[in-house]
Amino acid sequence: MPRMIILTEAELRKIIWLNLDAVACVENAFEALATKAVAMPPILRLDIPEHRGEVDVKTAYVPGIDSFAIKISPGFFDNPKLGLPSVNGMMVLLSSKTGLVEALLLDNGYLTDIRTAAAGAVAAKHLSRPDSTVATIFGAGVQALLQLKALTLVRPIEKACFWARDYAKAEQIADSASKEFGFPVKAIADPEQAAALADIIVTTTPSSDPLLQAAWLRAGQHVTAMGSDAEHKNELAPDIITKADLYIADSLKQTRILGELHHAIKAGLVDPDAAYGELGAVIAGSAKGRASPSQITLADLTGTGVQDTAIATLARERAAHANAGTSFES
Amino acid sequence: MPRMIILTEAELRKIIWLNLDAVACVENAFEALATKAVAMPPILRLDIPEHRGEVDVKTAYVPGIDSFAIKISPGFFDNPKLGLPSVNGMMVLLSSKTGLVEALLLDNGYLTDIRTAAAGAVAAKHLSRPDSTVATIFGAGVQALLQLKALTLVRPIEKACFWARDYAKAEQIADSASKEFGFPVKAIADPEQAAALADIIVTTTPSSDPLLQAAWLRAGQHVTAMGSDAEHKNELAPDIITKADLYIADSLKQTRILGELHHAIKAGLVDPDAAYGELGAVIAGSAKGRASPSQITLADLTGTGVQDTAIATLARERAAHANAGTSFES
Repeated sequence: MPRMIILTEAELRKIIWLNLDAVACVENAFEALATKAVAMPPILRLDIPEHRGEVDVKTAYVPGIDSFAIKISPGFFDNPKLGLPSVNGMMVLLSSKTGLVEALLLDNGYLTDIRTAAAGAVAAKHLSRPDSTVATIFGAGVQALLQLKALTLVRPIEKACFWARDYAKAEQIADSASKEFGFPVKAIADPEQAAALADIIVTTTPSSDPLLQAAWLRAGQHVTAMGSDAEHKNELAPDIITKADLYIADSLKQTRILGELHHAIKAGLVDPDAAYGELGAVIAGSAKGRASPSQITLADLTGTGVQDTAIATLARERAAHANAGTSFES
Repeated sequence: MPRMIILTEAELRKIIWLNLDAVACVENAFEALATKAVAMPPILRLDIPEHRGEVDVKTAYVPGIDSFAIKISPGFFDNPKLGLPSVNGMMVLLSSKTGLVEALLLDNGYLTDIRTAAAGAVAAKHLSRPDSTVATIFGAGVQALLQLKALTLVRPIEKACFWARDYAKAEQIADSASKEFGFPVKAIADPEQAAALADIIVTTTPSSDPLLQAAWLRAGQHVTAMGSDAEHKNELAPDIITKADLYIADSLKQTRILGELHHAIKAGLVDPDAAYGELGAVIAGSAKGRASPSQITLADLTGTGVQDTAIATLARERAAHANAGTSFES
């Protein structure tokens, strides 16, 4: 009978967190996506509208990595009424050579939070101005705080702002962030003003109506939109895609149907087949990154299976090293 | 932290096996597919050709069932060289209301074996002649024996034959089957002769070249082809689809791309959009079944997510009743 290791969220939190190792792990995954014969099938998606539920299943095989993850990500948006988190889930790590289950990562979405924030760091590292010091985050959830932390790992951030639909929540998160990072962080009620202050803007909301307008952007800014992972989600006014000097997708196949790009295509502003660079190609040097300090750059992140395979593999290695987890025979 | 139950293969074997309960469970699942607003997304498929590996992920939500399964089915065809089974895998059972993981069924493919064989019983029950007494099975693997057992549950089988590419294997399985069922079972070297003897023929191989020819079929026979679950697999000569008086799919959406129907479409014998009945509709009475004892009927089974959700839910219920499994906090 096959043996596997089971890791709980509490165990995973002790061995994986958002730091430069996690960023490097996700950066390598994106590079592999651009340079290796990665197999990353379309996301499996199940909708359960009567319970406002949705489940995404993602996977990717990266040649050279001995394992691959299959990630199950449910989002059930009535859960908070029941005192439960909306988002949870788990990952299964399988051997690339035998298909046997090697590990069950019962992370309740924690590893997704980390690999998603790490992708924000990777985008900022390769696309924002190296002298970016001011960050503005749209949103007030778990990713809002993590995306700010991600920026601090790769850029000399000295000041940050939060905008959220609910100003009280923006104030709360600004307060937490200023304590955590030790630099000034404030909530700003006017989204235009919040955007104007920033060198880097990160949108982290599940909004289905654009929050950021093209007219608000100015030369030299970088924008990462990471909230959209479904057809109906939309954080950026579609003409931001055409206003930006550089648009970069995490996976162009995905952003054409799930990302901000999708809405620009639907609005007729962009050709459905228009060629754009991907983050992995920028990392590998085969696609252009920021060409000057005055460009407006834009990263459209929908979340990819290679990130899951990378972070799950890192977690399993760390667990083996720390002798963490429960061994289980199936 | 969410609580879940973990069930191993050994525990599952004690509470679920191929009997009329399992057949009824799968029959109800097919009926639901025809009569309820079932959500069954396309199969997620990952190929790892360098290790002759493939992984299918299937799921389905059935309104009225409080849980849904996500099944991970790897097949790695070099595994036997390593002393490992080719096929393994597991199922994750989630709450339809909250998306929380309720159970991990570490079945190594066992539940898939049962629900697949049960579908063979359901097809025979609704399509074969009630007086069918002779069964011929193509193949000599786990499903070959299970499919014969499935037929014995629903038809008065008195005699059976096995044909396999490797005659020695056909002899071995015939020997096992005759001991298990207490009626005459023999291996037959000539596939045409094996087919001629049968009231019901079940093909259970991973063949990519047709094994059964149209000219071999005679009035009154029923054929179930259950080996094909991928584009390249093909057990029936494509003109069997047009020769049969009645063709029934488990899921027409799937058989058009993965089943025997797919090859008839590719051969230009059948229109890609041709309408055929589905097994669930036959059960529900909204599609025609066998109209006379002389018809040749054909069931094309590719395996559906509703079967997984049904058998996983049954397993979880049985486990709760038997107080089986290990409770785990994520």
